[in-house]
Amino acid sequence: MKIFSAILILLTASTINYKDMTANPPGSEIPIKYKEIAEKIINRARADSMAWERLAYMCDTFGPRLSGSAGLEKALDWIYGEMLKDGFANVRKEPVMVPHWQSGKEYCRMTSPRWQDFPMLSLGGSIATPPEGIEAPVLVVDNKEELFKRAGEAKGRIVVFNNQWDGYGKTVQYRTRGAQWAAKAGAVASLIRSVSPIGMKVPHTGMMRYDDSIPKIPHAAITAEDVAMLKRMQKRGQSPVLKLYMEAKMLPDAQSYNVMGEIRGTELPDEIVAIGGHIDSWHTGLGAHDDGGGCIATWEVVKLLNELGLKPRRTVRAVMWTNEENGVRGGKAYAEAHKDEKHHLLFEFDSGIFPPKAIRYTGPEQTYNILQHIEPLLQMVNDSMKVTKGGWGVDIRPLADLNKIPIMSIGTEDKGRYFWYHHAPTDTPDKVDPKLLNDCIAVIAIAVYIYADMP
Amino acid sequence: MKIFSAILILLTASTINYKDMTANPPGSEIPIKYKEIAEKIINRARADSMAWERLAYMCDTFGPRLSGSAGLEKALDWIYGEMLKDGFANVRKEPVMVPHWQSGKEYCRMTSPRWQDFPMLSLGGSIATPPEGIEAPVLVVDNKEELFKRAGEAKGRIVVFNNQWDGYGKTVQYRTRGAQWAAKAGAVASLIRSVSPIGMKVPHTGMMRYDDSIPKIPHAAITAEDVAMLKRMQKRGQSPVLKLYMEAKMLPDAQSYNVMGEIRGTELPDEIVAIGGHIDSWHTGLGAHDDGGGCIATWEVVKLLNELGLKPRRTVRAVMWTNEENGVRGGKAYAEAHKDEKHHLLFEFDSGIFPPKAIRYTGPEQTYNILQHIEPLLQMVNDSMKVTKGGWGVDIRPLADLNKIPIMSIGTEDKGRYFWYHHAPTDTPDKVDPKLLNDCIAVIAIAVYIYADMP
Repeated sequence: MKIFSAILILLTASTINYKDMTANPPGSEIPIKYKEIAEKIINRARADSMAWERLAYMCDTFGPRLSGSAGLEKALDWIYGEMLKDGFANVRKEPVMVPHWQSGKEYCRMTSPRWQDFPMLSLGGSIATPPEGIEAPVLVVDNKEELFKRAGEAKGRIVVFNNQWDGYGKTVQYRTRGAQWAAKAGAVASLIRSVSPIGMKVPHTGMMRYDDSIPKIPHAAITAEDVAMLKRMQKRGQSPVLKLYMEAKMLPDAQSYNVMGEIRGTELPDEIVAIGGHIDSWHTGLGAHDDGGGCIATWEVVKLLNELGLKPRRTVRAVMWTNEENGVRGGKAYAEAHKDEKHHLLFEFDSGIFPPKAIRYTGPEQTYNILQHIEPLLQMVNDSMKVTKGGWGVDIRPLADLNKIPIMSIGTEDKGRYFWYHHAPTDTPDKVDPKLLNDCIAVIAIAVYIYADMP
Repeated sequence: MKIFSAILILLTASTINYKDMTANPPGSEIPIKYKEIAEKIINRARADSMAWERLAYMCDTFGPRLSGSAGLEKALDWIYGEMLKDGFANVRKEPVMVPHWQSGKEYCRMTSPRWQDFPMLSLGGSIATPPEGIEAPVLVVDNKEELFKRAGEAKGRIVVFNNQWDGYGKTVQYRTRGAQWAAKAGAVASLIRSVSPIGMKVPHTGMMRYDDSIPKIPHAAITAEDVAMLKRMQKRGQSPVLKLYMEAKMLPDAQSYNVMGEIRGTELPDEIVAIGGHIDSWHTGLGAHDDGGGCIATWEVVKLLNELGLKPRRTVRAVMWTNEENGVRGGKAYAEAHKDEKHHLLFEFDSGIFPPKAIRYTGPEQTYNILQHIEPLLQMVNDSMKVTKGGWGVDIRPLADLNKIPIMSIGTEDKGRYFWYHHAPTDTPDKVDPKLLNDCIAVIAIAVYIYADMP
């Protein structure tokens, strides 16, 4: 019996071996090979809420992190010090000159038919009003088509866009281009309905753009509630008049930095897997979801691998890119400074801290097929995890485009909530669930470790 | 066969007749007797969105309606004029002297470890800070028990209550009594976490009270987010310091009014069914749910009955009570002015405009049993409508208590949403669904008409 058993085992073993080398597709060994490591990662990621504590500390202590602000630079210095304490290799601050736009004092007040102050936020890049402000009757339009039709009525007025939420991609055009459309029609300023699916008297800011061939006018966001009221008043013939005051200005470029640190690869240390988020935020809220959470999560992945002594073949580098929101100077500077390095993968997390649902990949089909074998391990974190196509990231794009580097990102299931907080005073650490942050960390750590460890 | 059939019909008819007059409980005729009328009411109530238009017009045009404000008095004058246009009988403004508390200019700013302005609202009845404001370190406590334990640390500090939402009744105690508890412990001012289940950087105001035996200190509400941050900072030893500035003051009583109008009863015109809501609001938001909607709905009930020529036996009077929020002077004045009239029922709607789920009644058991027979008619509006016990209303209580008058109110299914908007800038007409307002009107009109028409 003993001999028979031994022969059976040998036969079985040799069969498996044979299959591995021939019939089994590349990567099919992953679920078994990395199971124990994935378990270690998940247990460590879920062991405490230190990642969230770090996020909350950064948000609370340094405040908003707009490019050019003291808050951003203090946060970067703190990260630099913490990465050293974490025992990362090659911790460094790489200089980046960033646009320095400031919002300054501002208000929006209805002065007729009665007085009411409206919460408002100037949009990133907007010019100021004249020092005495702008007081003018409004023209509310539901969309740009209505503005073009009624262009004759816009002259000398403040155009108010009643842009209903229709998904971010469509709605955000009113933020980025609304001032151009309104100025073309002769408006003296333009206001948008904040780009969000919910109105809770919360204004949402974000980037806007001018066209040099069209006069520049001040451009700001007010709340869904106040736009709705202005529209009702206009319909009734109550002719609302607004006073808009904004000190927004563009100063000379300011000094900022990309901050990074790494764990060196065991076999191919010069091949880099760079993972990160953007450390800058808007001038409102505390940038907890956008993108403090993405920064902390990716940084924490490197810290976790380091603490567990999990060193993959290649180097894994956490990068906190600066100035994503209004310039992408961090992403561009990283591409320029690191174009001669060999990057194996670029990973960005900038979609809000919610239940992880997908690892998204843009790269060679062969590698994508291998990555499918990570799915069972990712599903140890969250049953519904998938590996899909469509990796993206604003800060990793410049280097990815330049050197044709594969891209990976994480998809989260926000159920529309992300845009409750996006670019708004409501983007605060209490909106981030420590457990979901840990789950995101676990998923990224598994995917990135295996990718960085590939033969 | 023909004769047999005729006899059978006669026999059947006489059986039914006999049962109606003897065995059938009182009110069992209601579902058939009033079916056509209920249908008429529902069709008319749902015919357009004019009720909502009226609500939005009032909110937009006159703004917040705090007792003592021009906004409230302008709204009352407008209602008076509209009730005349609606063809109501005995339209009148009955004078009521109301408390005149004003919030004035105010701000709350964290000045250490960094600057951040906090959205805030002074609480109704609070005193001002000294003209230079109050700048003091904070003591954050989770509840009053923690404050009492740590009373030694409160002296000279701004006490911040981190009162988590635990239903309105429990949580609101921090708003009404927080200043007393904090002052007793030696605090220089007190702040509460806004009384709401949701934090969207929205402050919620409301009534507070002093105890004459305890020093008075300024008392205000800040947002859930900012209280959470202060608590985290305290835990980390970051010792946050706040600067609080408030101009809140109590002026001499101001002139206000209860406004009312009616349709006279056909048989018992001197017996009154008074239905209404409170027309005053806080100094923030537009008082759309609280209680503009209740006012418009009950007023609209009388208008609808009048337009349909549905005159019940008794008089139905719509009353817009003033000063519910900070004094109940309107309800008390109504009781005093009308105590010699015979009131058959008092009805108040002050629970927000959401799907109607119940007509609530407090009165004789016999009448309650009769009212059960209205249920099938109410269910023509909403399947799940019930007639239950537990009618209530702050403004109708004084007269109900004085003359033992039955009370009725409407229960709505808000799923927690009411307190997203309650006493906050977010209480605006866009939060009120025109269709649900119509359904509330239909339900109230059916219940009130039948009640006013009872033998």
